[in-house]
Amino acid sequence: MRQTIQPRSGTAFTIKKGERLKVIDPEGEQVADIYAFNEHDKTEFLSSGRTLDYNESIRFKTGSKLYSNLSEVMFEIIEDKVEDHDFLLTPCSVDTFRHFYPDEEPVPGCYGNLVAAFAEFDIPAHHVGTTFNTFMNVDISDSGKIAVLPPKSQAGDFTVFEAKMDMIVGLTACSAGESNNFRYKPIQFEILPAQTV
Amino acid sequence: MRQTIQPRSGTAFTIKKGERLKVIDPEGEQVADIYAFNEHDKTEFLSSGRTLDYNESIRFKTGSKLYSNLSEVMFEIIEDKVEDHDFLLTPCSVDTFRHFYPDEEPVPGCYGNLVAAFAEFDIPAHHVGTTFNTFMNVDISDSGKIAVLPPKSQAGDFTVFEAKMDMIVGLTACSAGESNNFRYKPIQFEILPAQTV
Repeated sequence: MRQTIQPRSGTAFTIKKGERLKVIDPEGEQVADIYAFNEHDKTEFLSSGRTLDYNESIRFKTGSKLYSNLSEVMFEIIEDKVEDHDFLLTPCSVDTFRHFYPDEEPVPGCYGNLVAAFAEFDIPAHHVGTTFNTFMNVDISDSGKIAVLPPKSQAGDFTVFEAKMDMIVGLTACSAGESNNFRYKPIQFEILPAQTV
Repeated sequence: MRQTIQPRSGTAFTIKKGERLKVIDPEGEQVADIYAFNEHDKTEFLSSGRTLDYNESIRFKTGSKLYSNLSEVMFEIIEDKVEDHDFLLTPCSVDTFRHFYPDEEPVPGCYGNLVAAFAEFDIPAHHVGTTFNTFMNVDISDSGKIAVLPPKSQAGDFTVFEAKMDMIVGLTACSAGESNNFRYKPIQFEILPAQTV
């Protein structure tokens, strides 16, 4: 069943090993941040650094695996219409809004939305680290400069992640202007059952 | 007073706001991983993601600031003879040795050395995240491929970090072959007093 995350909000849910998380961008150009914990040991969580290490790449596509801080595979991308995602930058937050948009009233952002969603699973705020930013288009220049560009995702594009362990997963419709071509749209998702051979 | 970290080992110590940490590569081509906690709140720690966000760059040099997960400045680089460091990759560990060098007997690596050093300050292992890898030479190709190259640091080169809060700091002489041009050397460091105007 398809569920909708309203613009600039987030949710958390459990997923079992073998099930698949389909993240859909219904209107296009909208980022969805993902973070995850081992359901049975909340000190094991998604790790940008380990994932960059083992993929030996900052680009992600079908076949890429996302690792935990304990070097276990949490997700594998098994289908991907976009193949342009980010795993360098932290979820937007009150602090990042103050830093980048000092004239705007700050909103909770993906970080605040994830912290609130994970709190229902008794996960403390400081355990929420760098998110896998689905559909986020980040360019690195030859000099190392980071630029955030409009997502390449078009209406209806999606990425499917297979769960490699039982997890608590947080997912957002990103709240940052620059990341979403300055229009805040919903994100949709489905939990698909484990595939039987 | 200059202190020496033996090859493939690590240590932890406190530093006060305003003091400066001088990290020296005495022989050249040796990486030193740094991680840090707010001495007064160990749920505040060094954050790769926040630092990449606010620097808007994956390159670091004199003037670069290193941020915590709470978006506070922990360190500022105030002098830097190398200006080539990494803040993408996790410290080497038993798991990374098994992954990259399956035929070798794994060693604790920077992660194991940091976990042991921080344990004396009652900091749990899962709070040790992506380290600032001083002198580590990481190249990102146009396609996003990560390559670890020999450090550009020469004998006697150093980087000076000014502490912007009271911290518990972990520092290693890195244990990974590829990162250190396949020779394991010591790292030296000094804590310099706060500068008086």
